[in-house]
Formats: sequence, structure tokens, C-alpha cells
Amino acid sequence: MEKLIDERREIYLEQLFTLLRQKSISAQNIGILETATMLRGMMEDIGINARLIETDGHPVVYGEVIRHPGAFTLLIYGHYDVQPAELADGWNSPPFEPTIRDGRIYCRGAGDNKGQLMAQLMAVKTYLDVRHSLPINVKFMFEGEEESGSPNLAVFVEQHKELLACDLVYTSDGPLHETGLPMVVLGVRGMLYVELSCQTSKWDNHSGNKGNIVPNPAMRLIQLLASMRDGEDGRVLIDGFYDNVQEPTEAERAHLRQLPYDNAQAGRQAGYEELDMDAETYYRRLMYEPTLNICGFSSGYSGEGSKTIIPAKATVKMDMRLVAGQDPDDIYQKLCAHVARHAPGVEVRHLGDMKPSRTPVHHPLVQQVIAAVESAYRQPPVVAPALGGSLPDYVWTQILGVPSVLVPYANSDEANHSPNENIGVENFVNGIRCACHVIDRIGR
Amino acid sequence: MEKLIDERREIYLEQLFTLLRQKSISAQNIGILETATMLRGMMEDIGINARLIETDGHPVVYGEVIRHPGAFTLLIYGHYDVQPAELADGWNSPPFEPTIRDGRIYCRGAGDNKGQLMAQLMAVKTYLDVRHSLPINVKFMFEGEEESGSPNLAVFVEQHKELLACDLVYTSDGPLHETGLPMVVLGVRGMLYVELSCQTSKWDNHSGNKGNIVPNPAMRLIQLLASMRDGEDGRVLIDGFYDNVQEPTEAERAHLRQLPYDNAQAGRQAGYEELDMDAETYYRRLMYEPTLNICGFSSGYSGEGSKTIIPAKATVKMDMRLVAGQDPDDIYQKLCAHVARHAPGVEVRHLGDMKPSRTPVHHPLVQQVIAAVESAYRQPPVVAPALGGSLPDYVWTQILGVPSVLVPYANSDEANHSPNENIGVENFVNGIRCACHVIDRIGR
Repeated sequence: MEKLIDERREIYLEQLFTLLRQKSISAQNIGILETATMLRGMMEDIGINARLIETDGHPVVYGEVIRHPGAFTLLIYGHYDVQPAELADGWNSPPFEPTIRDGRIYCRGAGDNKGQLMAQLMAVKTYLDVRHSLPINVKFMFEGEEESGSPNLAVFVEQHKELLACDLVYTSDGPLHETGLPMVVLGVRGMLYVELSCQTSKWDNHSGNKGNIVPNPAMRLIQLLASMRDGEDGRVLIDGFYDNVQEPTEAERAHLRQLPYDNAQAGRQAGYEELDMDAETYYRRLMYEPTLNICGFSSGYSGEGSKTIIPAKATVKMDMRLVAGQDPDDIYQKLCAHVARHAPGVEVRHLGDMKPSRTPVHHPLVQQVIAAVESAYRQPPVVAPALGGSLPDYVWTQILGVPSVLVPYANSDEANHSPNENIGVENFVNGIRCACHVIDRIGR
Repeated sequence: MEKLIDERREIYLEQLFTLLRQKSISAQNIGILETATMLRGMMEDIGINARLIETDGHPVVYGEVIRHPGAFTLLIYGHYDVQPAELADGWNSPPFEPTIRDGRIYCRGAGDNKGQLMAQLMAVKTYLDVRHSLPINVKFMFEGEEESGSPNLAVFVEQHKELLACDLVYTSDGPLHETGLPMVVLGVRGMLYVELSCQTSKWDNHSGNKGNIVPNPAMRLIQLLASMRDGEDGRVLIDGFYDNVQEPTEAERAHLRQLPYDNAQAGRQAGYEELDMDAETYYRRLMYEPTLNICGFSSGYSGEGSKTIIPAKATVKMDMRLVAGQDPDDIYQKLCAHVARHAPGVEVRHLGDMKPSRTPVHHPLVQQVIAAVESAYRQPPVVAPALGGSLPDYVWTQILGVPSVLVPYANSDEANHSPNENIGVENFVNGIRCACHVIDRIGR
């Protein structure tokens, strides 16, 4: 198979270029149906039984290669929509005309996610052309709204549980580890985003004429927020916040200790050079511990110099990144109860949430995928138990109830969402090889 | 004297109109020297020995009528500068052309402060014309920078202690009590204005990718601010904050209880209808208790919806209104010590301060002034031990070391600093009468 992939390099690139040239900007509803239709055709040409399925938003392109109904089933997830792009944003070549420079394909969607999606399809094509059948069932679900926040994904998965039924979900999105090593990611933190606000007066008051008479809404929020934490970085004091949080096991901690980590570099990347942690602490905090974070606080006067007022209103925006075991609905209730007890007048607005997701490192299927990635790249991948950020991975682990692995193919400087988005030609080809190895290994 | 004032009403109004027509906008440096020169001429015409004295800013117009060097000396303070004004701001008649409508004189400076200043001069003219001499020495100090924050006042007073030496300072500025009753005000709260800021990173970080890794500057300030107060409205916990604050005596509290107070109205005026206080509590908090107030807090994202960041920076602006006995320098040192102990990385910027001032209600001279005001208005004045706000009254009580009383003449809807500034004709005439009564009473 490896030989065939090398021989067909130009043909496979041409397939990708065709897909890249077709705009599919979900936010602007440009070229969505055309792209979905083109993608279905490409899938059918490979021998995948494909169709479009309507949603309340853009259609899903679904496909399958069924060996036999009882066989092991792999569900491959990806997305065919892209971020907006204009030449004037700073592109060095037209954003929808794929251009190779220095071994990279520059085009909107090259890395995110058409290049990675196409690698999966070309792997299946290679496999079928060499072996005439797959050793497992493979299903494909490519959505057209990922760049708009996947507003219909959870409902779609909920409504198509039987169609999507599988043993493992396999996603390729995002970049390899920054060292260039391959990556296997097994989960994400969830999130709850809220806004707390407090209005004490109808207007800002003169701080001399009304000082000590009218309450200060900023100070009310400050006392409330201070009551939520034992000091600046301390334990969160909302009752029951940690109820279902599990400490990492000794095996998990040992795993964290051997993840690549450079404290000085991590500090530079955060613009916080005082950072002082070891690998275990860093990854434990990011992957196994929830956050309670202030994203913004605004009240009263923020211009130059002084203005002597008691503000009428104060608002704070907060996110809580939640780890496996925590549920955003439950945490929201607990937060509301805390607010009601400590500062009854404060309003809570729910601005969004996402459940956390985690697939255990020691799951046998995960070990198969890790072995396949290692054989494809000829070096062991970095295995991250979770990302610090939030993706809708829970739709697989909680709605479908199956393990989910994320194996990214793009280079770490893919510039996704930015001008001059790109994917290395070798990254694309290695992606094809990697998917072949995964299918092959799981099929043994 | 009262009869003469009535007879000369038109003449005295014409004097005021002449002064009002002469622009004197300190912020724009328009007409300052012309006004100071005109004012000196008017004072000389009355028989006051007047001259201009230079400062680092606009000149002071100084004048005196000395009976004999050892006599009781009253220093009358006022200001001849005014706020800017443009017809387009919403004036119903040209802002520098005095216009009488419905018994009020509309003109920039009518209430603040030319009308009140002119009432003092016309009182002295009346007194001299009737009695041929004053029973006391009277000194006048009219500054030209009050509307720009009196930046040179303290230095001027410090440098001219001998010239300004007196037994009592008498100021007419601001309005009568809102009930229409005359007012005698005996002090002001001081102020300290600071900005605290904290930068933890060079840029905003992704709250998922760096959450629990990079410290949150807003939370650092929140914990610091919470440590400054025992609850939202509680005691200030900065060490030594209350060191020199004196509780009001039983006599003072009894005085507060009988000041005019309407809780519902006070609540409406503050846009805070939940206000629930009695007169004593209200005035004690405003006049005898310092504040620690947040004027503004800003950090991170404050737009619509959600943005998931750990802000790089947080800033809070605060003022503390200080009561008699407290010194802003001392409080600033104590604040800095608190910050250094609780949040060493937080920067403190000093943005301004003013010392508090208080003249005791039971001072015999104050009682004389109160009696004079009562006889002029034929009703007892509201005697306020202090204003909640801040004025540079300390230059008299602390630099000159003499008692100071504020007896305003303008109507409470004088619209000072606003379009259609005005003073009632009767307010102007009553001001003349009041000043005559004060000079007469003190001269007995």
C-alpha cells in the first residue's frame, strides 16, 4: 500500500485540489451544497455508499463501506466546511486556489479540514484498490457546520444513533505535536460559560454625594467571586464543584510525566515567563483539573484618569473548563445555588456549555490506534489524555457511548483560521498512510 | 440697609450683568485677564483696596477693607472663572448675555459663581454707603481657576498666609438646600483616588489551552479588593484605616437627626429605591464615615456573548472619601502596605487627593453665622456638618488654620456647569442681604 500511495501522490493531490477549489464557507453559506454534492461523488467513485442527510443547518455527507453488518465498525468524522478567507486578509496566493510552495499546499481548508478528510478517503481508496475490500466496516460522517460551532451535531447524532452505530470514532483535525511528533488525543475538557451581573442603581452616582449610601455593584460581584475560590489559584469553593472529579491514577500520572514538556517554552508561549511547573503538574492541571476563570469584568469608568462614581452596574463573564465526570448542567445548578446564597440580587445568564469527554488511555482499542500511528510514522506518538480546550467530542463518548480518538495529520504551523492556511504535502501523504495503518491494525 | 438694597435692585443687577457679559472661561483661557481687571475696577469703585496677584496659573483678585489691623478679619472666597458654554449645547438664550425670564437670570456664571461673588461685593457697597465703614476687616480672594480644579490654590494660600490672615473664611458657592431653606455647610470629605493594576501575561491567553496554567489578573485584584473589606458594605480592613476617625458625639448625632430627610426622595434621587435609612444613619455615613469605593473595574472581554480568554491585565479605579482626622498621604501609605502584603505584583498609581476639612458646629463664630443667616432669611438654615463630596476647604482650616463656613446663595436648580445656568433674582438679592447680616452680626 505504501508503494501505491507514493505512485499516486500526484493523483491524490489532484483530488484534494479539486475539493479545495470548491468554496464551502459555512458562516456565509457559500458553496455548501455544491461541496457536499462533490464530496458525495468523490466518495461514490471510491466505492463508498454515500448520501447527503439534511439537518436543521447544512447537510451531513454520510458514507459507508460495510463488510458485513456484524463486523467491527470504525466511524470517521470530519468536516467539509471552512472559515471565510479573502486575498486582502494577507494571503500570498488566492485563498481558494491551492498553490504548492516549499512543500506545502496553501489554500483555505488545506489543513482544516479538507486535507485531513481527503487523506481518510484516499486511504480507503488505496486499501480497496490493493486489497479489494476493507477488513472492517467504515462509516464516514462529514458535517458542514463545524466552523460555525456544530450547532446541530449533537441533535444529529442523537437522531441517527443506529446509522452511526460503531465501535470507535476516529477524527483527524488539528495539528501534530509542536515537536513534529505524531499525536493521539483522547479527550477534551467541557465548558460552562456564564455571565453574572448586578445592577444596584438606575444610574451611576456621584461617589462623594452618595458614597456609603448606595451599594457598589462591583464590590458585590467581587465579594461573590472571592467567595468562589480559596485565594487566587486556590480550590473552588462552590459546593459540590469537585463531586465527580477523579484524581489521575498513578499510571496516568506516570504517563503525564513522560509527555514532552519544556517549561521555558511553555512560559514563552503563554507570555508568562514566570511559569514554573514540571510536566506532571502542567498536564494534570490542564487535563485532569477543572478551571474557574474570569474572561472579563467590567464596571464603571475605565478611561484615562479619574471619574468619581459609584457604578450602576457590574458584569463578569466566566468560563469553567470541566473535566471527565463533571456535567455542565449540574455545575450550572451548583453555581446558581452559590450565587443565590451569597449574593441574591446577582443575575446569572447561561451563555453556553459543552460536556467533557474522555476515552481511557488503557482502552485496548486506543492501544491499537497508538500502535498503528507508531508504525505509520515509525516513531511513537505523543498520547495526550485530553486537550485543555473544548470540542464536541462528548457526542461520541456520551451520546453514542463509544471510545473516540483524535489523530491529527496537519503540521503545527498550519495557520488554520488564518491567512495562508496550509498543510505539508508530506503531512497529507502521511495522513493517508496513517489511516491505512489504523484500518489495517484494527482489522487484524 | 434692607431698604437701600431694594431701591438699588436694578443698579446691582446691572453690575452683575456687566460682569456676566465678560467671558472668563478658565479651561479655554478666554477673557481671564479682562475679567480680573474689570473685577478689580468694580471693587475699587466700591472702596475696596484691590489688586491682581499672579500665580502659576490665572491671577487672583485680592481686595481688602481694613478697619484697623487688630480688628476681627473675615476672608471672603469666591471665583470669577466659569465653565465653557456654547449656544448649541442647548441654551435658550445666548450663554454670555444675561437674560431675565420668570424671575431668573440666565447666563453662564450666574449661579457659579459670579452672582454669589457680586452679592458679597454689593453687600459691602451697601454697608459702606449706609454706615460709611465696616465693623470688621474684610478681605476678598477671588481665584480664576476654580473650574479647572484650583490647581494653584493651596500653594497660593501657603505663600500668602500673612496677606490672607483672618479669623473666619466665608464662601458662597453652590445651592441652597433643595427644600429652599438656607444652608450653612461646615466641612467636606477629603479624597484619595488610586488605580490598581495587575498584568500577569504579555497577552490574553486561550482559557482552555492555558486555564489553570496562567494566573488570572482579575482574580488577583478581586481577592485583593475582597481583603480590603469585611463584606460588601463592611468595615474597611486596611490596617489603621480608621485610626484618626472620630465617632460623632451625642450632640452631633442629635443634630443629624433633625436635618431635613426624606428617605423615599433620597432613594429616588440616587436611582436606588430600596434605600432604607433614617436621617441620622444617612448623614452619619455621608459626613462622618469614610468610603472605600470602586469607580471602575476593567479586565478582558466585555462585548456581547462569550470570549474564552484569560485576560492579560486587570485595572481597578478606586476613591476613598476621607473624613476629618484622616490624611490622604497616610491612607495612601496604608493602602500601599496592604497591597504589598496581599498582592505584591499589583501596581498602585496615585491619581489625586484632597484633605478633608471640618469646622465644629458648636464653634462660637459658626453660631454667629447661623444666627445671621437666620435673621437674613427669617428662617433657620439647614446646618450640614459636612458635604459628602470634596472641595479644597482644607486650605482654610488646615493651611490658614481658621474656621470656614460655606453659605450658598443660589437656587438648587441653578444648573451650574449645564446649559441654561441661572440664579433667581431673589436669590441674588437675598445673598446681598445675607452678607450684610453676617458682617453686621460678626461686627457686634
